[in-house]
Amino acid sequence: MNKANTGRFFEDFSLGQVLEHPIPRTITEADASLYLALTGNRFSLYCNKEFAFQLGYSKQPLDNMLVFHIAFGKTVNDISLNAVANLGYAEVEFLLPVFVGDTLSVVSEVIGLRENSNGKTGIVYVHSRAMNQEGYPVLSWKRWVMVHKKEKGMHNTYAVEPQLKNSVGFGALSIPEELNIQSYDDRYSGEAYRLDDYDNREWIDHKNGLTIDNSEHTMATKLYQNDAKVHFNNHQMENTPHQQRLVYGGHIISLCRNLTQNGLANAQWIAAINGGSHLNPSYAGDTIYAVSQVLKKQELGSGIGALRLRTLGFKNADWEELKPLYEKAVESKSKLSSDFVLDLDYTVLIPS
Amino acid sequence: MNKANTGRFFEDFSLGQVLEHPIPRTITEADASLYLALTGNRFSLYCNKEFAFQLGYSKQPLDNMLVFHIAFGKTVNDISLNAVANLGYAEVEFLLPVFVGDTLSVVSEVIGLRENSNGKTGIVYVHSRAMNQEGYPVLSWKRWVMVHKKEKGMHNTYAVEPQLKNSVGFGALSIPEELNIQSYDDRYSGEAYRLDDYDNREWIDHKNGLTIDNSEHTMATKLYQNDAKVHFNNHQMENTPHQQRLVYGGHIISLCRNLTQNGLANAQWIAAINGGSHLNPSYAGDTIYAVSQVLKKQELGSGIGALRLRTLGFKNADWEELKPLYEKAVESKSKLSSDFVLDLDYTVLIPS
Amino acid sequence: MNKANTGRFFEDFSLGQVLEHPIPRTITEADASLYLALTGNRFSLYCNKEFAFQLGYSKQPLDNMLVFHIAFGKTVNDISLNAVANLGYAEVEFLLPVFVGDTLSVVSEVIGLRENSNGKTGIVYVHSRAMNQEGYPVLSWKRWVMVHKKEKGMHNTYAVEPQLKNSVGFGALSIPEELNIQSYDDRYSGEAYRLDDYDNREWIDHKNGLTIDNSEHTMATKLYQNDAKVHFNNHQMENTPHQQRLVYGGHIISLCRNLTQNGLANAQWIAAINGGSHLNPSYAGDTIYAVSQVLKKQELGSGIGALRLRTLGFKNADWEELKPLYEKAVESKSKLSSDFVLDLDYTVLIPS
Repeated sequence: MNKANTGRFFEDFSLGQVLEHPIPRTITEADASLYLALTGNRFSLYCNKEFAFQLGYSKQPLDNMLVFHIAFGKTVNDISLNAVANLGYAEVEFLLPVFVGDTLSVVSEVIGLRENSNGKTGIVYVHSRAMNQEGYPVLSWKRWVMVHKKEKGMHNTYAVEPQLKNSVGFGALSIPEELNIQSYDDRYSGEAYRLDDYDNREWIDHKNGLTIDNSEHTMATKLYQNDAKVHFNNHQMENTPHQQRLVYGGHIISLCRNLTQNGLANAQWIAAINGGSHLNPSYAGDTIYAVSQVLKKQELGSGIGALRLRTLGFKNADWEELKPLYEKAVESKSKLSSDFVLDLDYTVLIPS
Repeated sequence: MNKANTGRFFEDFSLGQVLEHPIPRTITEADASLYLALTGNRFSLYCNKEFAFQLGYSKQPLDNMLVFHIAFGKTVNDISLNAVANLGYAEVEFLLPVFVGDTLSVVSEVIGLRENSNGKTGIVYVHSRAMNQEGYPVLSWKRWVMVHKKEKGMHNTYAVEPQLKNSVGFGALSIPEELNIQSYDDRYSGEAYRLDDYDNREWIDHKNGLTIDNSEHTMATKLYQNDAKVHFNNHQMENTPHQQRLVYGGHIISLCRNLTQNGLANAQWIAAINGGSHLNPSYAGDTIYAVSQVLKKQELGSGIGALRLRTLGFKNADWEELKPLYEKAVESKSKLSSDFVLDLDYTVLIPS
Repeated sequence: MNKANTGRFFEDFSLGQVLEHPIPRTITEADASLYLALTGNRFSLYCNKEFAFQLGYSKQPLDNMLVFHIAFGKTVNDISLNAVANLGYAEVEFLLPVFVGDTLSVVSEVIGLRENSNGKTGIVYVHSRAMNQEGYPVLSWKRWVMVHKKEKGMHNTYAVEPQLKNSVGFGALSIPEELNIQSYDDRYSGEAYRLDDYDNREWIDHKNGLTIDNSEHTMATKLYQNDAKVHFNNHQMENTPHQQRLVYGGHIISLCRNLTQNGLANAQWIAAINGGSHLNPSYAGDTIYAVSQVLKKQELGSGIGALRLRTLGFKNADWEELKPLYEKAVESKSKLSSDFVLDLDYTVLIPS
C-alpha cells in the first residue's frame, strides 16, 4: 500500500461526513505582502497599518480574499483532488476579520451527493468553515464539485441536494465589530465615491489589464497550499486538451477583485460571495480585465452601506471590444463568449 | 461617467498644484525579504538585524531603493499614468532612515510646466516628498515626465521650468543620526575597501549579470503598487513597437545597484541620486550588468565618507565587450549604443 | 585592480584555512512564507504557530532546509564561485532549531585538497558551520567541490582527503530540546503514519509533480543570497552546453523534500543529511517528482523515532514509467538514466 494520498473519489464521500482538514495555517504579514505582489492588491486598508488603527482595528486586518484562498486551499486535498470541475460557490460569508498572526483551521461537512447519469462521476456538495485559533468561525462557504467515481455505475438510491440561497441577504452580513467607519478618510483610498454615488445597474469599466505569468500564479497557489495538480504539473497537463497548466480560479477572482479597486476603492470589505462561475480557463500569458455592475445597494446604518456587485472578468480584449458581444449574448440569452473567464456575484461594504 | 481613473493629461496639471497621493503604505519585513528575492540585494545592513543594532539603529532599516520605489509608486497614478516618457530625476534626497513598520505618505507639487511645440504633449515637473507616520519627511525628489494632451494645440502663454541642481552637494547629505560608524565591521560586508581605497575616476566592473524574467519584474512593480500599464498589460503592449511589457526603470536601477555590491560592499547607504536616465528599455530575458566610476569623494567627518558614483547599466554583453564602444562614444561625443540601459549619478555614504 | 570579487581558484585554498563568510543573515517570517510559496512546503510545523507552541517551542521554528539554503548561500562566494561541479555533501547535521528572527553567521574550514591529474582542476573539501546570534552552532556540514586552477600544472606534493562518515549515526542526532512530542497531534499533519507504520525497504511514491519556472528558482536562489552565476546569468549560460540557466541543486532538494510530505507528513524534522548527489541538471520547464525508500528506522526514546530515507528525484516522467528503468539499472549496477536528478540519503525525526 502506497502511503501517499491520491484523493477521495465519489464513493469515498457520505452524507453528513465531517472532514477536519489538516495543516492549519498561521497567516503572516508576509503572506499579505506576497498577496499584494502576486495579485496587485491596492485596497488601502490592507497595506496601511495606520489607516487600520484609525478605523478601530487593533491589529492589521487581512484581505478577505487572501483569507478565502488559504481556507479554500486546505479543503482541496480532501475534497477536490480528483475533481473534474469546480461547479460553483454559494453562501460565502466572511464572519469575522482575520488578523496578521491568526491561525485558521478548516472543517467541511458533506451536505449533498448526487450521481450523474453517465455513471462515471458524481456531484459532492460541501459546507466548509474556517475557525481562528480561538475557535471562532471567520468564514463559511458552500461549494459543489464534480468528482470521478472509482467504479462505473450507479450506486445510491437517491440524490440529496442542499437548498442553497441565491444570495446572502443584506441583513445577514457581518460587519466588523471594531470598525469605526466615522474615521474613514477618502484620501487614503484615493476615491471619493461612497454608497450614494453608485446607481443601481451602473457599470464600471475598471480599465486596467494584468497579464498572468506561470511563476506568479503557481506561487500564489503554493502560498495557499492548494495542491490541485492541474495548476502545478505541466508534465501531466501537456497531455490534456489544455496542453498546459491551468490558472487557479481563485487567482482570477483576486486579479479581478483587485482590478475593481479602480472605481471601487472604498469597497474595501468583501462581506459575502453570493455565487460565482469560472466561465473559461485562464493560462499563463492571458491578460485579465474586469468590469462591474451594481446589482443592488442598501444603507445598513451607522454610516455603512452594502453594494451587491457583479464583476465580469475577461481576457485579451478590452470592454469596448467585448461590450457588444456581451449585450448580444444577454439579448439572445446565449452563453458568453470564450473571452469571459469569471462571473462573480458578491457583496461589499462601503462607507455611506 | 465611468468611475475608474484614467490618469491626468497635460491640461489637468497647474503650477503650484498639490497632489496628495492615496494609499499610504506600511513597509514590512516581508517587503524587505521580497525586495531581496526579486532584486538580489546583498548589502549586509539590510538583511542583518544584529549588524543594524550594532551600528546604533534601534530597528531594522530598509534599503533606500526599496523606500524610493514604494514612494515613487504612489505618484504614478496621479502623475505618469499617461506619460509618454519619464524624462529624468534630480535632487533625490534620502532624509531619514525608514524602518520596518513605518508608513509612508507621499505628496507632490507641480513645479514646472512646458508645452512641446508639436502641440500634442507637454512636460510636467513635480517635486514629491514622502513622509513617515510621524509626519517627518524621509525622501524628497524631483522628476519630469512627458504627458499627452487631451486636445492638440498650444494652450499656455508661458513655460515655467524649475531650476534643478546638477547634484546634491556633499554638505547637504543627510547622515542617519543614530549611525555609530565606529562599530562598522568589514567582516559583515565581506570587503575591506573604505573611502580612501577608492580613487577619483576609478572604474569598477561588477562582473556578475542578472537575467530578468516577467514574473519577477512585474511582482516587484506590483509590490511597489506602481500601476503603470506598460509593465503589466501584455495585451496592450503587443501592439506597440516594444511588442511586449517594459521593465519598470526602477527595477533596473535596483538590479544595477545590487550588482554594485560586488566591489562597493561598504557603500551601504544611498544618500542622494543626483540624476539618472533610462537610456533604453529592458525586457524579460535581458541580462543586466553594471560598471561604476568614482566621480568624486570626500571625508564628511566622524568616520563617514561620501562617494559620488556613476553607474552604467547595460545588457546582454559584458564590460570587456562594451568598453571599447563606450570609449569611442565618449571620444566622439555621440550617444551610447543600445546595449546601455541606465546612466545613474548618485552619492553613497561609506566608512572612511 | 578591479575591486569586484571573482572567486577563489584552487591555488587560493590552503589546508586548515578558515573562511569567515560575510553577510550574516537574519531569517524572518517573510523568508518562511517565501519558502512556502517558492517550494510548495506543506509540512505543518512550519506554517502553524499554534502547533509549534503546542509542541513546546517558544517561537516559530524554521524549516531546516530553508536554514540549510541560507547558510549554504553564504559559502558560495568564497568557495564555489568558480566551481566546475558540486561533488557531494556529507555529515550535514542540524544541531539546534533556528527560529524566526535568528541571525546566522557561517564559517568554513578547508579540510582537504586534492589536485586532479589533468592539471586543470582540483578538489576542495570544506567543513562549514552556521552559528546563531548567540554563537551556538545550529548547522554543520561538509562538502567537496571541483574548482578551476588559475594555472595549469601540478603544484602540491601530496593530497589530503578527509575521512567522511557515510552517515550521521542515529545516536548522534540532535533532538530539539524544547520538543514535547507527547503533544503531537496527527490531525495537524493530516497523516496517521508514525515510526512503526514504516517498514524497512518500503517505497513511497509521492505522486505529485511540480513544474519549475525561471522566476521561481531564481527568486529562491536570490532569497538565499547564493550568487553562483550559473543560476542567474542566461547571457553567459546560453553559450554553454546547457544553453540556459541551471536550477540550483538545493532548490531541487527542497522540491523533492516538500513532495515527500505526501506520505511522510509526520517526518517534520530533517535531522541530518548523510549524503547527496545531483545526478543531472534541471532547467525551467522541468516537472519534478519524487519517491522515497526507508533505509533504516529506530526508536530513539521519549516517543521520538528516526527514519533514514533515500529520496530519488526525477523529472518529466512518473514513477510507474521509471521504476522498470530504475530496477534494471540497480540489477546491472549501471548509472541511473538521465531522468533522475537527485539521490538524497537523509535522516528525519518522526513520532513513534
